[in-house]
Amino acid sequence: MDERALIHWIQKQTAAPSPFVPLSIGDDTALLRFPGGETLVTVDMLMDGTHFTSADTDARRIGHKALAVNLSDIAAMGGTAVAAFVALAIPRSTSPEVTTSLMTGIQALAQQFQVAIAGGDTNTWDGPLVISITVMGIPHAKGPIRRSGARDGDVIYVTGPLGGSILGHHLDFTPRLAAAKALLDHHDIHAMIDLSDGLATDLRHILRASQLSGAIIDEDKLPLRDTIAHLAKSEAIIRALTDGEDFELCFTVSPQTASTLGRGESLGFPLYPIGVCTQTQSGLILHSGQGQITTFEREGYEHRLGQANTSTREKP
Amino acid sequence: MDERALIHWIQKQTAAPSPFVPLSIGDDTALLRFPGGETLVTVDMLMDGTHFTSADTDARRIGHKALAVNLSDIAAMGGTAVAAFVALAIPRSTSPEVTTSLMTGIQALAQQFQVAIAGGDTNTWDGPLVISITVMGIPHAKGPIRRSGARDGDVIYVTGPLGGSILGHHLDFTPRLAAAKALLDHHDIHAMIDLSDGLATDLRHILRASQLSGAIIDEDKLPLRDTIAHLAKSEAIIRALTDGEDFELCFTVSPQTASTLGRGESLGFPLYPIGVCTQTQSGLILHSGQGQITTFEREGYEHRLGQANTSTREKP
Repeated sequence: MDERALIHWIQKQTAAPSPFVPLSIGDDTALLRFPGGETLVTVDMLMDGTHFTSADTDARRIGHKALAVNLSDIAAMGGTAVAAFVALAIPRSTSPEVTTSLMTGIQALAQQFQVAIAGGDTNTWDGPLVISITVMGIPHAKGPIRRSGARDGDVIYVTGPLGGSILGHHLDFTPRLAAAKALLDHHDIHAMIDLSDGLATDLRHILRASQLSGAIIDEDKLPLRDTIAHLAKSEAIIRALTDGEDFELCFTVSPQTASTLGRGESLGFPLYPIGVCTQTQSGLILHSGQGQITTFEREGYEHRLGQANTSTREKP
Repeated sequence: MDERALIHWIQKQTAAPSPFVPLSIGDDTALLRFPGGETLVTVDMLMDGTHFTSADTDARRIGHKALAVNLSDIAAMGGTAVAAFVALAIPRSTSPEVTTSLMTGIQALAQQFQVAIAGGDTNTWDGPLVISITVMGIPHAKGPIRRSGARDGDVIYVTGPLGGSILGHHLDFTPRLAAAKALLDHHDIHAMIDLSDGLATDLRHILRASQLSGAIIDEDKLPLRDTIAHLAKSEAIIRALTDGEDFELCFTVSPQTASTLGRGESLGFPLYPIGVCTQTQSGLILHSGQGQITTFEREGYEHRLGQANTSTREKP
């Protein structure tokens, strides 16, 4: 498939008109329309050998991940994703089937969440595969949920199991847009972030942004992914806190809201209360069932400072 | 400079608040506010060895180009650029000085046009330098100027000399945002495009989008860049039509508007009327001063279908 054919293929796949995209592919820019005049914007660049390995991964899963990581950022702000712009550097040696598979992975997820592929830039070159996707979304009527809204005493929640994502989850996860919407529709969420760099790092981002000194985590309440459940408990806890790429939401609510939220029974999806924010202790304090208390010093593998995030991640 | 330092550097450089960017770097996404609820969006990905050669080019010029090509797309729609999102894959071997230089090139141009660097994604890897920038802009009160508005008999203009851009212009050009604004403020512009792939290709985009069959170009009116002025006339004409990366605007207006526009005297910058659109002849018809008429069949070097553009460009 040459680039011209690829563009036509994309145009055909994205024929469904979006009320948010009056002008799509075919002019110098797209034109997007945001009813409230506000839009959330995020960009993530994924590179072969860093965020995926093309040699042993179905291109469809790579495409899925490239869009999903961006949708996860929109979810973390409590927004609804509406449009994506896909920039590609494709190795000249890539077969048409693989390119189609890559685009199908992006497109299938876009359709699932009614996100319009409104533009992009398709290149071929002699380097490895690079995918940079920019996603625009609409904030919830309650406004964007920032990292900075957590309060002393807030209950800390995650939306799913942690750790061991590298064994497959990071390529196949469903971004938590539906959970974010349901949470905001029905509850008062103080702060939220998506878990890309590991709970230890991402929760610290919430604490720092919220000017809180610490968080107390109940080890026994940390939901562990199946793939790490066989490990010794201490090792599994470390993996859950630091592996990263869980792409679950981590959010905080008041104790009153937590008593209503419970474990997500009324929302129809599971929620995991794992601890509380505190202003009286410093750092991440782990409580075990046996009453042991430790301060967790390690970070996740990635330094990330908000949506101008950074990555030095090695091969997954 | 590690990535964390780079992000802090970017944040410091972009401290000036923008009314369009209520939330910038530091959360899961940025939040942008568009007064009219409409935004122009474009993305361009530039790769080392394809759109620039890092080995023999000052990184500041590379940064400049990476943003400038996007601003040129916003100009081509008649818009004002307001925010940029910068995704980078930087070779691990790159020195801090070179990275700073790259960012300075982006930042200086952004400041010149009051474009906020509102987010991004900074990565290091073992591959070549890749820069993907997404720019958002606000359409003019008259709305976006599309490629499809040209009419039979319209006069075709370009905003500057063509050809030979590869000798330096493509790295240093000023995107025609000011010209686009002045044109729209004072005149009725029918169709507009920026010249990235060469006039022969880009003018055909206007003709096709406008359902016009042809254009008649007066060879002697084609403005030639200094760098190709020494060539034999026939060769220079071909270069002006096909070299590409001129990043001038090409637009069409009614003959009445053209008589007011002249050569840009009242606007304070030069304009070059080069021909007319026609519905009675097919293709690009070249008229020479000696009365010779030829049909120009060649395309520019790049196939480009609107803002989901494609590129197979070889080393510049």
